[in-house]
Amino acid sequence: MTCATESVAERLDAPIARYQRVRATTMRLIASLEAEDCVVQSMPDVSPTKWHLAHVTWFFETFVLAEAAAHYRPFDDRFAFLFNSYYNGVGAMHARPERGLITRPTLATVIAYRQYVDDAMHTLLETDLSDAIQFRIELGLQHEQQHQELLLTDIQHVLSVNPIRPAMRDDLVVAPNATAMPMDWQSIDGGIISTGMHPDTPDFCYDNETPAHDTLLNDFAIANRPVTNGEYRDFINDGGYTTPSLWLSDGWATVNEQHWGSPLYWSDDCDQQFTLAGMRDIDWHAPVAYISFYEADAFARWAGARLPIEHEWEHVAANQPVTGNFADDDVWQPVGNDTSWFGNTWEWTASSYGPYPGFKPLDGSLGEYNGKFMCNQMVVRGGSCLSAADHLRATYRSFFYPQSRWQCLGLRLAKDR
Amino acid sequence: MTCATESVAERLDAPIARYQRVRATTMRLIASLEAEDCVVQSMPDVSPTKWHLAHVTWFFETFVLAEAAAHYRPFDDRFAFLFNSYYNGVGAMHARPERGLITRPTLATVIAYRQYVDDAMHTLLETDLSDAIQFRIELGLQHEQQHQELLLTDIQHVLSVNPIRPAMRDDLVVAPNATAMPMDWQSIDGGIISTGMHPDTPDFCYDNETPAHDTLLNDFAIANRPVTNGEYRDFINDGGYTTPSLWLSDGWATVNEQHWGSPLYWSDDCDQQFTLAGMRDIDWHAPVAYISFYEADAFARWAGARLPIEHEWEHVAANQPVTGNFADDDVWQPVGNDTSWFGNTWEWTASSYGPYPGFKPLDGSLGEYNGKFMCNQMVVRGGSCLSAADHLRATYRSFFYPQSRWQCLGLRLAKDR
Amino acid sequence: MTCATESVAERLDAPIARYQRVRATTMRLIASLEAEDCVVQSMPDVSPTKWHLAHVTWFFETFVLAEAAAHYRPFDDRFAFLFNSYYNGVGAMHARPERGLITRPTLATVIAYRQYVDDAMHTLLETDLSDAIQFRIELGLQHEQQHQELLLTDIQHVLSVNPIRPAMRDDLVVAPNATAMPMDWQSIDGGIISTGMHPDTPDFCYDNETPAHDTLLNDFAIANRPVTNGEYRDFINDGGYTTPSLWLSDGWATVNEQHWGSPLYWSDDCDQQFTLAGMRDIDWHAPVAYISFYEADAFARWAGARLPIEHEWEHVAANQPVTGNFADDDVWQPVGNDTSWFGNTWEWTASSYGPYPGFKPLDGSLGEYNGKFMCNQMVVRGGSCLSAADHLRATYRSFFYPQSRWQCLGLRLAKDR
Amino acid sequence: MTCATESVAERLDAPIARYQRVRATTMRLIASLEAEDCVVQSMPDVSPTKWHLAHVTWFFETFVLAEAAAHYRPFDDRFAFLFNSYYNGVGAMHARPERGLITRPTLATVIAYRQYVDDAMHTLLETDLSDAIQFRIELGLQHEQQHQELLLTDIQHVLSVNPIRPAMRDDLVVAPNATAMPMDWQSIDGGIISTGMHPDTPDFCYDNETPAHDTLLNDFAIANRPVTNGEYRDFINDGGYTTPSLWLSDGWATVNEQHWGSPLYWSDDCDQQFTLAGMRDIDWHAPVAYISFYEADAFARWAGARLPIEHEWEHVAANQPVTGNFADDDVWQPVGNDTSWFGNTWEWTASSYGPYPGFKPLDGSLGEYNGKFMCNQMVVRGGSCLSAADHLRATYRSFFYPQSRWQCLGLRLAKDR
Repeated sequence: MTCATESVAERLDAPIARYQRVRATTMRLIASLEAEDCVVQSMPDVSPTKWHLAHVTWFFETFVLAEAAAHYRPFDDRFAFLFNSYYNGVGAMHARPERGLITRPTLATVIAYRQYVDDAMHTLLETDLSDAIQFRIELGLQHEQQHQELLLTDIQHVLSVNPIRPAMRDDLVVAPNATAMPMDWQSIDGGIISTGMHPDTPDFCYDNETPAHDTLLNDFAIANRPVTNGEYRDFINDGGYTTPSLWLSDGWATVNEQHWGSPLYWSDDCDQQFTLAGMRDIDWHAPVAYISFYEADAFARWAGARLPIEHEWEHVAANQPVTGNFADDDVWQPVGNDTSWFGNTWEWTASSYGPYPGFKPLDGSLGEYNGKFMCNQMVVRGGSCLSAADHLRATYRSFFYPQSRWQCLGLRLAKDR
Repeated sequence: MTCATESVAERLDAPIARYQRVRATTMRLIASLEAEDCVVQSMPDVSPTKWHLAHVTWFFETFVLAEAAAHYRPFDDRFAFLFNSYYNGVGAMHARPERGLITRPTLATVIAYRQYVDDAMHTLLETDLSDAIQFRIELGLQHEQQHQELLLTDIQHVLSVNPIRPAMRDDLVVAPNATAMPMDWQSIDGGIISTGMHPDTPDFCYDNETPAHDTLLNDFAIANRPVTNGEYRDFINDGGYTTPSLWLSDGWATVNEQHWGSPLYWSDDCDQQFTLAGMRDIDWHAPVAYISFYEADAFARWAGARLPIEHEWEHVAANQPVTGNFADDDVWQPVGNDTSWFGNTWEWTASSYGPYPGFKPLDGSLGEYNGKFMCNQMVVRGGSCLSAADHLRATYRSFFYPQSRWQCLGLRLAKDR
Repeated sequence: MTCATESVAERLDAPIARYQRVRATTMRLIASLEAEDCVVQSMPDVSPTKWHLAHVTWFFETFVLAEAAAHYRPFDDRFAFLFNSYYNGVGAMHARPERGLITRPTLATVIAYRQYVDDAMHTLLETDLSDAIQFRIELGLQHEQQHQELLLTDIQHVLSVNPIRPAMRDDLVVAPNATAMPMDWQSIDGGIISTGMHPDTPDFCYDNETPAHDTLLNDFAIANRPVTNGEYRDFINDGGYTTPSLWLSDGWATVNEQHWGSPLYWSDDCDQQFTLAGMRDIDWHAPVAYISFYEADAFARWAGARLPIEHEWEHVAANQPVTGNFADDDVWQPVGNDTSWFGNTWEWTASSYGPYPGFKPLDGSLGEYNGKFMCNQMVVRGGSCLSAADHLRATYRSFFYPQSRWQCLGLRLAKDR
Repeated sequence: MTCATESVAERLDAPIARYQRVRATTMRLIASLEAEDCVVQSMPDVSPTKWHLAHVTWFFETFVLAEAAAHYRPFDDRFAFLFNSYYNGVGAMHARPERGLITRPTLATVIAYRQYVDDAMHTLLETDLSDAIQFRIELGLQHEQQHQELLLTDIQHVLSVNPIRPAMRDDLVVAPNATAMPMDWQSIDGGIISTGMHPDTPDFCYDNETPAHDTLLNDFAIANRPVTNGEYRDFINDGGYTTPSLWLSDGWATVNEQHWGSPLYWSDDCDQQFTLAGMRDIDWHAPVAYISFYEADAFARWAGARLPIEHEWEHVAANQPVTGNFADDDVWQPVGNDTSWFGNTWEWTASSYGPYPGFKPLDGSLGEYNGKFMCNQMVVRGGSCLSAADHLRATYRSFFYPQSRWQCLGLRLAKDR
């Protein structure tokens, strides 16, 4: 992808500082974890913390240092197999569901690996770098920010399956809201609107956000805030999980197979939810989170509304500031009375994840980053309370399978006008 | 759905004749089967022939006779459970994967059931019927035509898993083609185009084809004919099934888990394929069939092209006559040198199956017919050699999971211009 | 095996008559079935009726006709693959769990196959046969008698999974007993006792009954009749299925995984049970049946007793006449007030199925008949109401996995003295 | 069980010293492990090291301190759920296959838990204890010794599934043998022999070794040493794994499902095997190990011999000194040229694990220790190079499922005379 050449150079005018800041953030996030926490994989979707720390490092080693750093020698040749996630183009890889079986390298060795790569990166960053390499470094940092969020959602799941429900951090304090912000509908006129990013944009973006393209939208309305826990409780109390007519067929099958009756981390009595701060009383005025697409879709149908299509969401969000409740705020759970379109929870859209018209993946193995996942998944938008504050934008597309619940996923209602 | 009221009345000006013709076609299709053939379910996607015969009959009983026929008494009260497919709104149902465990009612009893319902329907059809009931009768007939095709594809799968590979019929004769029709690209201008059906259309259509709506298309090109077995063999010989960069991630996983190396019914040496006429030499100039979306998508990528989006396909097909190789022709396998846009094989599109903007499902339990499947599936277009000739149209949308291969599914290439 | 030479000759003094009688019995048993009934496999343990009919015929074709009949040509070469059960020594075979996927050959063809083999056997039986061939014919007839029982238990399971619960036969009438026979303990002195059959016995026996050998038994007591449905109901009502201390560890796991709370064919309210005569009121004074070893063992522990070891059972049964309620009696379910040690239900023993000291399997592929199953299974003794009357003896050993329940399996209590 | 009262008192004349010695041995064994190693469960049979350390401690807490120590308060109430293995009688327990999902308590906390319980035990051991409590303490120590071995075999499996194959210890040195000890047959006369332990034995034994009882054995011969790796290689090279007639039916199914072609830890080229010292060249003169019962049985059949029945083994071993290659020797893999009947590898017998005549399990929840496993498993005898030297005796019975391979399991041949 040719995008971002000039401005990547610009934002990297202190490239070492930025590199150090992102890498240090990762280590800051895990400061409260024990070595034992960093090993376990609680389900195939989850990766161990240790794996995340090593994988993002392997990314720099493979896609930057091996290309651009003269005489660079890998820290350990075996890590290419262990810490490649899914890039068939650069070699074989360890099976994803078995990541939690790996006790060595230890956490200490992985941290040494990070230091080794950081040293080489610092040396490299002091040299005159091509635009292509600068782009790859930025891609590596954006990649690490994505894994910062995954690392947190994954460790939340790991801790949640422990019957003693340990908190990741005891110092995350959030006061429940006494009142809810009313929900209003914002009316938007349809027409031919442009979404997506031009491949030559000076700002960083992923290939799946390109190219910018026109779409024809009908008039629509969209809610001013996400659906709250309290509203979701009404759905439950109204028989939401036992009324098949509210559900997609695959969703209904999943509800019954998985015995779902509430969001992932809610207690059976719907009083508390498991958070990175341990079991906490549910804040009824905060956005509902940790629900699947199926649940979001069923809720919307129950509410007489629908999920927004991703172009609708982006069309409105393009005019909103990228502010909100992010991982940097050290809250790490959704908060109420927040009018931001970013942070708090990702929002499920009605759009299946596919290529924009004229989409071209990045060249070479980096083309596997996004493009090959364009099937069976649904687009989510807006980031969450576990996303890095400087990582998001209106065009940003993330995506999950419709049955996925372990991410911080919520919804915002839309409807036809 | 309010569509089709006037013209349904018109086309039903000989409603009994039409009813009898469709119902008799079903019985004609299975004439060569033995009772034993009609019991077995070879995988969860497949239903036994006996089940199909009973289910389409139950559809009339439940959605027409129970509503409109005074004093109608069901043939057997237990059939409501056994032969409901997926309509939660009308009651509980037998588990789909267990349909093949039901030996009673026998085929003879099911045929008696058909006769019993036909008698009641004939009586009903002689009365003055409301538009709503006329629509439901037409829906029941269209539904039966869909099951005629499923019945054939299902029995093909049942017979295919028998090591002695019995033919369903020995009298299906088709001569392989000596030469292939050359493939050409047809250039189409983009712009705002209209697809789909108006809900008030006087012709029958399914709710998922509505409403008619505008879409913005880019300029594109589309092939004049589907991909042939010979072209698909080239893909195989070029390492198509062993080159991960050609595949979507989920597709690559499926290829390896299922050990796919050729279309579903091809012999290991890629010389023969299993058909309803038994094992037959592959006609290299006929369209490739019985492939998944993943394979169609990988082939297109290998060919430097892509699959058409469903609006592109419909935009072109709207100008084509609905002629071709259909089930009525008693060939029951794709043939070469056929320029039709209909029949032969369904064609995978790049479009995930979802609601058109403003989509409203039918009221009541019949709303479960199409709408609840709008997730995880891909749209296919054009019908196949196993479709009824009078069942198709340019707006017709069918849909299957991307891993499905047991239907007569092929592809036509498209590309950006 | 050299056993049975003289007396086999003797009992075969009317060998054609015996052959015809056994073969005709098989056909008599299935007279009430429809073709559809004969196709289905309701679980991997179950084989379709059609398969049983063909397999026992293949046994004669393979182990008798192919050896001894000059110029014999198989009915259909493909049947060697389809109808070999587990004899690796004579070639590859169709996968057991897929037997229910085979619609062709039809039942009519299988019956023609039986006639074809019967014709060849009749011709052969009119010639002067070696002892070895005479033994194989007798083995084939005993084998067919075993499959007569399996055929009945298998079709019972097939019909049971149909929600409409069809009866195999409507004419099986049995009056429930008004009173139970009291249970008494019979005291038996221990010591060195001999069990098993001498390999040179003039009577037919299976290799797994040989050789006769001495065993040292302690004094013990054994019940005069099997446990009844009424006694088993007491176990249920006393919390039998919810008290882990009564169960073997693997049994407790199975109870919970399979959600067992009563014998296999009992209705949820423990009022009725599914029989070959359809749903019938439970006869509380008849023996309990269709229970696993785990349930038999737990019942015995609950009752303060234990299961008999197989040598104990045989030591007592050796003095009992081989009379009782057998398949020939056309009752086909256990009856009460029956003092026989044979028929009614098989009785689980405490003995795992293994080789007697000095055991030698039959030579060649027939050695696979019994020997290779001597692991993971438990011995059952005495036959059932679905066994042929002339098929049993005190030394007869059958065997099933401890979790198996679809055979007519019950228990008799024993205890130390 | 009333066994062992006097002599337990005697051997506990320095009871604190013995307690400390066993407990310290456990910690010595794991000294080379990292915290990360101690968390992972590589398959359901395996437990994490951390779990073993806590479970054996919970055993003292539950069965000794809670009974006998006044005012004892558990270290953490939640551990009763987390670290109960399978004692339904003392409460609910965490699911076995999920033991590897527990990151907290950390290893450090578990070590603190051990210290806490040790402190309470030291206090208790200084008081005047009843025979019953003395027996329970001894049982707890024997139990801990069993888990010492399991801990080693489990961590071996955990490390083996890591592609980088880390050694547990680098300092385990063993020189391969240049020559093999010849195999000889030792002839033993049959007759009535006594095996097992009297329940009132003054020495410690498990309940499953009781009661002593007479058995009638035939004359037999038994090998002077176990089968070697070299002999097992001959079996492989002779097609052992591809010859169905050598295998039990369930064994043959397992071989094909699991794709077995050599012992568990052998490299594909049969040159090296994974040990606690990492990948090491196979010593062809050392005993074969890490094989299932199915493999042992097939090897014996190939060799024209059989496995010994457990009474045969015990009858001979009763005259042998309990010496050999044990965990205390810090070799931790089988060695050649060793005539001992103990240590090196456990030896599969032909005997299914069941109760001896008159067997009575321990009273109360401790009765779950051995008795409820008496089904589906096979007896192994003699201990291994990972057993504690003072833990074994001729009457000792251990048991594993016939498909189990992750223990240090080998075989010794026997035959009829």
